Amino acid sequence: MPTSEKSIIRRIRQLSGKRGVASVPLGIGDDTAILRVPFGHEVLVTTDFSLEGVHFRREWHPPESVGHRCLTRGLSDIAAMGGQPLAAFLSLALPVKLPPRWVDGFLRGLLGLAHQHGITLAGGDTAQSPGSNSNTKILADIVVVGYAPRGKAVRRSGAKAGDSIYVTGKLGASAFALESLFAQPKKRLNPEKYPAHFYPQPRLAVGKYLRERGIATSMIDLSDGLSTDLHHLCEESRVGAEVAAEMIPRAHGATLEQALHGGEDYELLFTASANRKVPRSIAGVGVTRIGEIASGPARVSLLEGLRRRELPPGGWEHFKSPQRSS
Amino acid sequence: MPTSEKSIIRRIRQLSGKRGVASVPLGIGDDTAILRVPFGHEVLVTTDFSLEGVHFRREWHPPESVGHRCLTRGLSDIAAMGGQPLAAFLSLALPVKLPPRWVDGFLRGLLGLAHQHGITLAGGDTAQSPGSNSNTKILADIVVVGYAPRGKAVRRSGAKAGDSIYVTGKLGASAFALESLFAQPKKRLNPEKYPAHFYPQPRLAVGKYLRERGIATSMIDLSDGLSTDLHHLCEESRVGAEVAAEMIPRAHGATLEQALHGGEDYELLFTASANRKVPRSIAGVGVTRIGEIASGPARVSLLEGLRRRELPPGGWEHFKSPQRSS
Repeated sequence: MPTSEKSIIRRIRQLSGKRGVASVPLGIGDDTAILRVPFGHEVLVTTDFSLEGVHFRREWHPPESVGHRCLTRGLSDIAAMGGQPLAAFLSLALPVKLPPRWVDGFLRGLLGLAHQHGITLAGGDTAQSPGSNSNTKILADIVVVGYAPRGKAVRRSGAKAGDSIYVTGKLGASAFALESLFAQPKKRLNPEKYPAHFYPQPRLAVGKYLRERGIATSMIDLSDGLSTDLHHLCEESRVGAEVAAEMIPRAHGATLEQALHGGEDYELLFTASANRKVPRSIAGVGVTRIGEIASGPARVSLLEGLRRRELPPGGWEHFKSPQRSS
Repeated sequence: MPTSEKSIIRRIRQLSGKRGVASVPLGIGDDTAILRVPFGHEVLVTTDFSLEGVHFRREWHPPESVGHRCLTRGLSDIAAMGGQPLAAFLSLALPVKLPPRWVDGFLRGLLGLAHQHGITLAGGDTAQSPGSNSNTKILADIVVVGYAPRGKAVRRSGAKAGDSIYVTGKLGASAFALESLFAQPKKRLNPEKYPAHFYPQPRLAVGKYLRERGIATSMIDLSDGLSTDLHHLCEESRVGAEVAAEMIPRAHGATLEQALHGGEDYELLFTASANRKVPRSIAGVGVTRIGEIASGPARVSLLEGLRRRELPPGGWEHFKSPQRSS
């Protein structure tokens, strides 16, 4: 193991603070971590890449934002099951010449969000990133482990014809920021003005509320964009869906296209029985009804005034970079 | 998500077979997987990179071997805790132009080993590998989740002065094969002649036996090499160690240096009280006493005949490639 890797592990150990909390009796420093899940609960596991040039760009995203967004991807998946996160695992491959302060910033962003949600960074792996020096990329893979009461995690597959469709928050904010970045690639955006893009908040409290009260019949997080994620939900539930364009809550400045197809909003999309009362706001986050589940094939229709058109998934490639489009 | 990623996920779903076994009620296809751990057990989690040019080379390792070794890395960590593996999660970033048959071979190797140990591939992530086309690498990150009875997982930290030190199997076989590859980089080795390098077997049955009978006071797997991993164990246990060169079981053809410093043997290194009887063979794998734990600083001494010298960790960079040495 090169010395640089050892120093990263040492840094992670220092920054991630105390070891041996009750739910994580063994963290970094052994062959595996040991986690304790409360009696009567099931284990939830999710894993997500954050790759330079695919999910972020070093010239656009400060390291704190990259670390924060990396963990948000995992926490948001736990939120979409109505789960409680417990621990994270980080695999990190770095170019040899990456300045140590980049790693520090990345870990600060990641561990700040971990601390906010009371979870431990309990392990991971480090390596030198492959490739020739001029073209070596930062590669991160985040694993989040959580739990939910046995049989109670909210799946994608529970939507029934007639259910109402809801989203949390406002959509398109992340795509709006990205479009500004693509329009002026050399200009840096002020992250404070675009928090939804640089520091998205996983909707853990909302997800838990919906699961505890048995409100959501199905749920998914909006990581790929409404059109794509609603398709995923329809496929798993074997139903169709109809959404009304004017009911979709748009972020300030975002176009309808950005709200429909822009990814990385990390809001929740869920369904509830038509006769179920759903609060307009949960844990300080707005909740908006946008449509209805239909029977039949996994197809999504968009109603705009009197017009009705099919809404195919993936209409928008939310991080179209030279790497991705090649 | 590019179509190629969808087709990979489809392929994984097909190849990984039936969903919804009792211990994995929800696998690929939702925001998270759901795992069930038996009552009274703790969850074990480990994550390991397998990066092209760092951990394998496409021109040396057939895809089946890369997939097999990728999962062995994780299973071997579970073995070192004396744990039972339950499920694996695979994050896979691939170059655009990678032939589909490479992915098929990789998955065959990985899933073959998973099947052998009765575990499910329950999720993961896919992405396009970053970098320009001529220099895009295959990146895999494997997560293995397992379990052990509460408080019974064997840690690195339990070795006491006076304990005997043991290893399973024979050491240096993987390094011996690697040296042959470096000596003639253009020549392909026949994987059947070098199974310890191309298809290493995680010592799950041995690890479980040692944990169930309370034999091992501490344990680690030999992934980085005896000198390095014994140092890790000493550091976590706050003890020193003495090993005798002539007692170390060497693989056919392997030099002492390869046995001492060569990584990726995936044998187990463990300690047991001096008065504890340890079988010479467990689950068909030889077990050999190689030395003794000493009190004092985390230092390893090697006895060769009458000579005694310090054995520093990492004396051998076990996969010295152009990427790694740069």
